[in-house]
Amino acid sequence: MENLLSPLDAAFHALADPTRRAVVSRLMRGPAPVKELAEPFDMGLPSFLKHLRVLEKDGLISSEKIGRVRTCRVNAEKLAGAETWLSEQRALWQARTDRLADYVETRMPMEPEDVG
Amino acid sequence: MENLLSPLDAAFHALADPTRRAVVSRLMRGPAPVKELAEPFDMGLPSFLKHLRVLEKDGLISSEKIGRVRTCRVNAEKLAGAETWLSEQRALWQARTDRLADYVETRMPMEPEDVG
Repeated sequence: MENLLSPLDAAFHALADPTRRAVVSRLMRGPAPVKELAEPFDMGLPSFLKHLRVLEKDGLISSEKIGRVRTCRVNAEKLAGAETWLSEQRALWQARTDRLADYVETRMPMEPEDVG
Repeated sequence: MENLLSPLDAAFHALADPTRRAVVSRLMRGPAPVKELAEPFDMGLPSFLKHLRVLEKDGLISSEKIGRVRTCRVNAEKLAGAETWLSEQRALWQARTDRLADYVETRMPMEPEDVG
């Protein structure tokens, strides 16, 4: 049931919804049956199951049915890729900020009229 | 042109596409005109502009037109919220892993037959 999106596309897509983020957060504390996962949400079970299917298709969770109980668990490593991408962007931003600061500091004592 | 999504919904939605992520990455190095941003992509300008509009609507970039040139810049703080959320999830996961490890370590010397 994997989809054709890249892992990053899929992770960000899955997380672009408050219900799905709340489910991921809950599963980060440990696996849980669907019934327990659905309980906090003020929505019908079919709507809730749609969100679970998106999470499963995007690879963020897996589920297994034993007897009559389907239990979900999170695939935490899928979130790690998204976090790594974001921290790389922050590093690019930081490098730029550092360069700007160096530039200003280098020029300021010599040519104060250029800074404004 | 802000949309009605929450900041986290909007950030994750905007990042769920490789072209939009590449634009964000480029802008993390500094502002750039639309024409320069579009150059690396093998797609028509109208399709590319759609991606820019999604990024702007989701609050990840801003743009300003001076004369005939529209220049884009990234709103880096919008990505910070998404990164914070992901690092909180990692902390939940880590806490759980630590609890499991403690549990196993505490029980192992006493009741080896329970571990398997």
